[in-house]
Amino acid sequence: MLFDPHVHTEGLGLSDLKKMRECGITHICDLYFYPIKPLFPQTLIDGFRKLREFEKFRCSLADLKMIPAVGIHPRSIPPDYATVLNFLGSNDWDAFGEIGLEIASKEEIDVFEKQLKLAMEKDVPCIIHTPGKNKREITIKTLEILDKLNFPEELAVIDHVNFENLDLVAKRGFWIGLTVQEGKLTKEEAVGIVEEIGEVKCILNSDAGFGNNVLTTVAETAKLLGDKAKKVCFENAKKFLRV
Amino acid sequence: MLFDPHVHTEGLGLSDLKKMRECGITHICDLYFYPIKPLFPQTLIDGFRKLREFEKFRCSLADLKMIPAVGIHPRSIPPDYATVLNFLGSNDWDAFGEIGLEIASKEEIDVFEKQLKLAMEKDVPCIIHTPGKNKREITIKTLEILDKLNFPEELAVIDHVNFENLDLVAKRGFWIGLTVQEGKLTKEEAVGIVEEIGEVKCILNSDAGFGNNVLTTVAETAKLLGDKAKKVCFENAKKFLRV
Repeated sequence: MLFDPHVHTEGLGLSDLKKMRECGITHICDLYFYPIKPLFPQTLIDGFRKLREFEKFRCSLADLKMIPAVGIHPRSIPPDYATVLNFLGSNDWDAFGEIGLEIASKEEIDVFEKQLKLAMEKDVPCIIHTPGKNKREITIKTLEILDKLNFPEELAVIDHVNFENLDLVAKRGFWIGLTVQEGKLTKEEAVGIVEEIGEVKCILNSDAGFGNNVLTTVAETAKLLGDKAKKVCFENAKKFLRV
Repeated sequence: MLFDPHVHTEGLGLSDLKKMRECGITHICDLYFYPIKPLFPQTLIDGFRKLREFEKFRCSLADLKMIPAVGIHPRSIPPDYATVLNFLGSNDWDAFGEIGLEIASKEEIDVFEKQLKLAMEKDVPCIIHTPGKNKREITIKTLEILDKLNFPEELAVIDHVNFENLDLVAKRGFWIGLTVQEGKLTKEEAVGIVEEIGEVKCILNSDAGFGNNVLTTVAETAKLLGDKAKKVCFENAKKFLRV
């Protein structure tokens, strides 16, 4: 049993979902992301409904247990985003994600902080994106915001961690998300990080979705991890997401 | 070169798109459909933008020339659909689809008629759905509406035609859409229909999308069609969609 806790099924076909299942993935966390800048907050509200209803159904056709994560991604902040925040505040959720900062604009920081506050009120686990560009600088800003809010460490995974920001995150108590795909981490790099910092806080994922055909990277890396795979490719995600 | 003029790429992964290209599909028409009942008209407006911008880009990654078709599907009519119709009326489009009737409710008829009127004003080709249930009865109703509006025959394909409604459509001048997939037509049935009524008006498609892994049915049927494939699997769709 393997858990891939960072997937965007809205970019995947049913054949892709079946391929994930065939390579040993049994559980996924499915993160909301709208791939263009939306003009309306309503688009996200319907999108969250689609994720929880339709995408969950599609995953069930592939025998995948799917945990939906919703929220405003920093690259798809709509105008009048307070409408989305109100909707998030007035319903119950399994997880928020991906949320976080891309360039740390004033708007992004406001959206991120308000979602973190909702997560604390509602006790909802958060999958927190770190960007490809200026990763170290943005991770520092992200951690400052989490500290300012006194955000519970067990309630957040700092995701897409690589050698640029590993030292910042390794000394903290947050979960550490390691994304194995081209342009992020190779399998060998992910294994190296787990061996360096231990398996207690590490969570492996693929970030499979719209453009990336990386459906099997968690399963492939699990083989290299040996005994450590149990925690890093299943139990840690299960505990973090309370499955 | 093959043209599959009824695809929903929003249910397909990039690997699926590449598979279509590999089997010989060079052109697709990508039809808008929201797979749950939307709560807001704005969701469709952003959805049309996503189709024209992001899905077109994804198709280009697979070297597929993609024609976007937008509109309100009878199973995804939002509240306040006039907002969507106004948006359709105030922009230019390559095609409308899928539009049509599912159960022929008063609301569906109103939405369908208003989109047909826009198509006539703007000279936009329409891909017109016929449902799985009560196909004959709903096709009769559909043709009555088209006749009432004096809708130009070259501007519409009546889609998902099978043995239940073939006689109604064969005697008319509209394009005839033949969908080859499980539960619709087999390859052999599609070939039989083309042989019976001639290749002049027939257009083959797969309706590949959210649940159906039928990426190659147009290519497979083209092989069985021999010389007739040129029109039925490419030239007719090209002419109808003015590519």
